[in-house]
Amino acid sequence: MSDCIFCKIVNGEIPCYKVWEDENVLAFLDANPAVDGHTLVIPKEHDQDIFTSADEILKNIGVAFKKVGNLLKNNFGADGVNIVNNSGKDAQQEVNHIHFHILPRFKDDGRDLKFVGGENIGDNFEEIAKKIRGEENA
Amino acid sequence: MSDCIFCKIVNGEIPCYKVWEDENVLAFLDANPAVDGHTLVIPKEHDQDIFTSADEILKNIGVAFKKVGNLLKNNFGADGVNIVNNSGKDAQQEVNHIHFHILPRFKDDGRDLKFVGGENIGDNFEEIAKKIRGEENA
Repeated sequence: MSDCIFCKIVNGEIPCYKVWEDENVLAFLDANPAVDGHTLVIPKEHDQDIFTSADEILKNIGVAFKKVGNLLKNNFGADGVNIVNNSGKDAQQEVNHIHFHILPRFKDDGRDLKFVGGENIGDNFEEIAKKIRGEENA
Repeated sequence: MSDCIFCKIVNGEIPCYKVWEDENVLAFLDANPAVDGHTLVIPKEHDQDIFTSADEILKNIGVAFKKVGNLLKNNFGADGVNIVNNSGKDAQQEVNHIHFHILPRFKDDGRDLKFVGGENIGDNFEEIAKKIRGEENA
């Protein structure tokens, strides 16, 4: 897409610090890192989010988690990683080209990935599961 | 694995609130939800994390993001989702069977997925990228 910053990175119009790539996927350092080594994994072909992306794109990204994760572990000394995707502007998605954050973690790094504001949670699991499955219109 | 709680859920020894499944992947409600509709996506076959999982498992999980995301959107009214994976105990992984959290988000829900403690971040992007690629041993 002509106005997509990540498409411009893929086609070389905007530079990036490349971490890994194959035919379908590019991994590069986030320009506003939350931690050193914070990497973004994106498909080279434009798509918006996990709701719309072709199965093939999602499969390629799944395999890229392993590639990039192991580079961070073996070459960068990470003891683990967090992977984060935000799909939808109401879910904090800022660039409308599907991307996954790979955040290296280190033993006793004092960091924390947390989901805050989770008040008002019900215990009506059966009803919630039925609704998600489409068996009930509430 | 005989002592794995998620394997016990897969084989029916421990009950769950199922959201979706196919031959390879199971999605069910997290027993300690951070938000109503908080779903876990796991492969039916045991594997530990993104560092070790077979490509086929990671591909199946990638496709499941779309399936479960769209159920949450179309049936549960979500406006977006956050996807989170923790790989490694130093990255907050609590169950050693690879799993991805799918967290439904809603417009103005007041929630926030954040990565805290990100002090001491360098601007030596070139050096970091080289190190991750394995071109430099620092």
